[in-house]
Amino acid sequence: MSSKKVAFFVTGNVHKFNEARQVLAEYGISTAMLNLETIEIQDDNLENIARMSAADAAKKSNLPVFVEDAGLFIKALNGFPGPYSSYVYRTVGTKGILKLMENERTNEAYFLSVVSFYNPQETSESKLFKGRVEGRITRQMRGEQGFGFDPIFEPLGGNGKTFAEMTTNEKNKFSHRAQALRKFVVGYRRMV
Amino acid sequence: MSSKKVAFFVTGNVHKFNEARQVLAEYGISTAMLNLETIEIQDDNLENIARMSAADAAKKSNLPVFVEDAGLFIKALNGFPGPYSSYVYRTVGTKGILKLMENERTNEAYFLSVVSFYNPQETSESKLFKGRVEGRITRQMRGEQGFGFDPIFEPLGGNGKTFAEMTTNEKNKFSHRAQALRKFVVGYRRMV
Repeated sequence: MSSKKVAFFVTGNVHKFNEARQVLAEYGISTAMLNLETIEIQDDNLENIARMSAADAAKKSNLPVFVEDAGLFIKALNGFPGPYSSYVYRTVGTKGILKLMENERTNEAYFLSVVSFYNPQETSESKLFKGRVEGRITRQMRGEQGFGFDPIFEPLGGNGKTFAEMTTNEKNKFSHRAQALRKFVVGYRRMV
Repeated sequence: MSSKKVAFFVTGNVHKFNEARQVLAEYGISTAMLNLETIEIQDDNLENIARMSAADAAKKSNLPVFVEDAGLFIKALNGFPGPYSSYVYRTVGTKGILKLMENERTNEAYFLSVVSFYNPQETSESKLFKGRVEGRITRQMRGEQGFGFDPIFEPLGGNGKTFAEMTTNEKNKFSHRAQALRKFVVGYRRMV
């Protein structure tokens, strides 16, 4: 039997899972995808959403688990779509975001990721790890990789590429999610 | 002492409270506004959101309480902004909705309201009462009354007026919220 550590990632999103799997593998940790219905609250603050989801998933599964919540925050739209990025993607989509941005003067935006870890063996609160990447909203969709709003987000320092024009490996070099996951991994090795 | 019944409405929205107060008064019931922080989950289905919020508020306050959740569902936008209407109003606003609707062929939309009642003395589930009003999204904002997306929603049978061009009394004649509240009142008189 291998003594390799396994981290349980509660998500239904296979793209997120693949990004996480690659990051955690760099640290010798295996990632297991746990597709479990969890409570996700409405809150303008991603941290509160992730904190509650992790606690809920840990109690339901009786496993030490982590969840990841992310959002695209667009300055000219007062932070929209923010914590509701997934719903907005499923309804008005990237097309809707591009339309809303048409006559806006600034295209500044950032992606924020919050990883929340909860161990049901401990009585403490969820532990949070954050990652953030600044960038801008493009005028048109570019690229076929990634998921969600990746085709319209060009991160700073990404050589003018959108996230959707990068391989998972490239995206993981500086994405919000990879940043949060790396902070989590450092904590994880001490926690379990 | 008066034997008048009092219903506890958990909301932080004074516009909603005033609409409810007027409807319930028609049935001889007083409405008390209870501004209490409750859990609001993310769910595409308003019923699930209202059900959980009512149970949470009742447990926190130890009172029989009702909550009301509403959303504007726009056909051409796949139901957007739906359950997240309040967040979308606070970020992209009516201006954003009008922009998204610019080249859409159909302007059909509906407002849905779900009232959820929970009595902590009983062990049963929250009771739900729904109201729905069909209408269309206007090309421009009209009217100063009401709140939220009222200035861009013209209900069917409203003589071409938007909700924001109506007094509370007029709006209550056929609004989604008033319909749900009337159903609730009928049930309420039996429940408490």
